[in-house]
Amino acid sequence: MRKLPISFFHLLSYPKNSILVTSEDREGRANAMAAAWHTPLSVNPPSYGVAISPKRATYKLIVESGRFGINFLPFELLDSLHTCGRTSFNELGEEKIRRAGINPIRGEFGAYILQEAYVSFECSLEDIVKVGDHDLFIGEVRSLYLRGELRGNIIDVERVKPILYMGEDHYVTVDSRSLRRGRILQGIH
Amino acid sequence: MRKLPISFFHLLSYPKNSILVTSEDREGRANAMAAAWHTPLSVNPPSYGVAISPKRATYKLIVESGRFGINFLPFELLDSLHTCGRTSFNELGEEKIRRAGINPIRGEFGAYILQEAYVSFECSLEDIVKVGDHDLFIGEVRSLYLRGELRGNIIDVERVKPILYMGEDHYVTVDSRSLRRGRILQGIH
Repeated sequence: MRKLPISFFHLLSYPKNSILVTSEDREGRANAMAAAWHTPLSVNPPSYGVAISPKRATYKLIVESGRFGINFLPFELLDSLHTCGRTSFNELGEEKIRRAGINPIRGEFGAYILQEAYVSFECSLEDIVKVGDHDLFIGEVRSLYLRGELRGNIIDVERVKPILYMGEDHYVTVDSRSLRRGRILQGIH
Repeated sequence: MRKLPISFFHLLSYPKNSILVTSEDREGRANAMAAAWHTPLSVNPPSYGVAISPKRATYKLIVESGRFGINFLPFELLDSLHTCGRTSFNELGEEKIRRAGINPIRGEFGAYILQEAYVSFECSLEDIVKVGDHDLFIGEVRSLYLRGELRGNIIDVERVKPILYMGEDHYVTVDSRSLRRGRILQGIH
């Protein structure tokens, strides 16, 4: 086991599923930001957190509108997601989303979600927790949409290939053949 | 696109890499809890967050000791990880970790990490953010250990198979053949 510089810590926490966070400006123009730093936070109330840098256009847009979308795209659209991660709404406006080839629509709660997503949530902004060079946006999940397939209650990874971010512009998806149920070990072994 | 009950939201956010959070009681006895709700939060300071239910033994242990470990295990040890997710330190004490077949050691900062992990961090507890039925523990990363292999600056998924949680006791790993670099789309397509 070797010790590494702490600056590597986030790269070593990957893979993480990479999502698009949808937002809007005051004129209702849609934006989408790629994010890999996000997680459920609570079942009741249904709370979802995403870390956002104050440097990103999305930060201000969500603060102003009080709502956002969380969108999971299939692996074949990773260049669309990556384009949203590497271009800026501040420079391109709605052209950003057009270049990425994705289509925002309004959900029932009024936030933008993406037609291309296999799962989308709409969230209301409940809190912003100051951390460091990113802040954590905590949203309450207000609606949930599914385009992809489930197997029982879980995403059917034989049919839905999620996008996992590896760091340094690299992405990977899952090996559906490896899916298996965990067993509880009973003895010392 | 169909609307689903909001109670599905966390299942639909999977896969997430599943980790073991290591902690200790006042006698220095080690515990490990499986967690899938965790994320980097900031590069500077290096901050990592993990959502923990107050019902879990780990919650109190970390509050008391002020430190914890974040450990990423290889896919061949998913039953070890799953055992830590489905048994309780409150009932089993150190026997929990023995049943899981994992070996805690002290890191440089004094927190427990796991010999079997391909990556481990030690964290100091900086803040607990109340959310709902889980709270977010925010740690500052104090040390970083690597047993697995890197390719450039990222985890070499051809050699290191991470454990991804799918919900409902199911796990999957990545398809290393799918690894690729994202491209930035330039035009409308």
